Amino acid sequence: MQRKGILIVVSGFSGAGKGTLMKKLVERYDNYALSVSMTTRSPRPGEKEGVSYFFVDKEEFERCIGQDGLIEYASYCGNYYGTPRPWVEQQLEAGRDVVLEIEIQGALKVKEKFPDALLLFVMTPTAQELKRRLEGRGTESHEVILGRLQRAVEESYGIEAYDYLVVNDDLDECLRQMNRIIDAARMRPSRNREFIEQFRTELNEILKGEN
Amino acid sequence: MQRKGILIVVSGFSGAGKGTLMKKLVERYDNYALSVSMTTRSPRPGEKEGVSYFFVDKEEFERCIGQDGLIEYASYCGNYYGTPRPWVEQQLEAGRDVVLEIEIQGALKVKEKFPDALLLFVMTPTAQELKRRLEGRGTESHEVILGRLQRAVEESYGIEAYDYLVVNDDLDECLRQMNRIIDAARMRPSRNREFIEQFRTELNEILKGEN
Repeated sequence: MQRKGILIVVSGFSGAGKGTLMKKLVERYDNYALSVSMTTRSPRPGEKEGVSYFFVDKEEFERCIGQDGLIEYASYCGNYYGTPRPWVEQQLEAGRDVVLEIEIQGALKVKEKFPDALLLFVMTPTAQELKRRLEGRGTESHEVILGRLQRAVEESYGIEAYDYLVVNDDLDECLRQMNRIIDAARMRPSRNREFIEQFRTELNEILKGEN
Repeated sequence: MQRKGILIVVSGFSGAGKGTLMKKLVERYDNYALSVSMTTRSPRPGEKEGVSYFFVDKEEFERCIGQDGLIEYASYCGNYYGTPRPWVEQQLEAGRDVVLEIEIQGALKVKEKFPDALLLFVMTPTAQELKRRLEGRGTESHEVILGRLQRAVEESYGIEAYDYLVVNDDLDECLRQMNRIIDAARMRPSRNREFIEQFRTELNEILKGEN
């Protein structure tokens, strides 16, 4: 059964470890491709075109919007960020699973355009653990951490829109769990329409041959 | 996270191996309980009360119907068959996953009453393989086999109502796949409402303590 890839949207609380999970998932398993976003913001030192982001100017970004060339986009602090559609669709057609990290609003837009997208929400086992990890980074002020926890409360009301929770306690176990969830998703009937259709055609041919 | 069990409904083409799969699933993994149906037909030699079926008379069965004591029921050849609700609910409350083998019509009724039920549809890898297995039993006439294949065509139009396909090629691999699908289902947000609620409460307490 040759199947199209799965579009996997990963959201989650800041500090829950989404970034690491996605990086490791792509490293450990062959079939994943990380989506690269397009942005109008300037490259930071060390960022690479086509790896960190596709860097474009405002005009080009807005032309993409006009051509429906983005799966979703948003603007933060005066800059656009979005997910280029052609690259994602190419990967899916080639049977690769595309992993996309976006916020809940973007995730819901993706689900509208790709009803078969798999929406995962990454959490820590407890709220205390989330706080501990945010503090453990040691790079953020108390105010920033409180802001992230406040945002987590707001985001927690959106979790029910996701298909699955991913609880990031032990990293390895969490990766296995994520991979199992995605693996199971391959067996949704909506992702196997051709297989079902072919089975039915074959059944009808057998019955015709017997009568 | 103490969770309620999952109600797993298994349907599939006659000859695809549902019965064996369910038996092995329960044998191999601890957390499954096979549902026992209630029927008004007479016990056959070797059938045991409470194991093969709960055998009751028509009056008692209809009292159960009246009391909404059955998750689903149907009548075949003048006899009632149904799934007793209290036993299933007890098992689910105790955190055990209940496996139920029923036809598509019954499966859809279960899904109405238990929207969180997981509907699995068992197929063979090909239609030819289905025919081969039906013939391999050596117990059924050519006409009966054709009838089953005809029924498979009709049932194939209902597959999209199921949550997942289970393709029974290699039995062991199929069991692992089934178990993975069920395992993934535990992480649906709708099955983790208490966990999400508790997380949010804890977050709010942290924020209150910090301000």
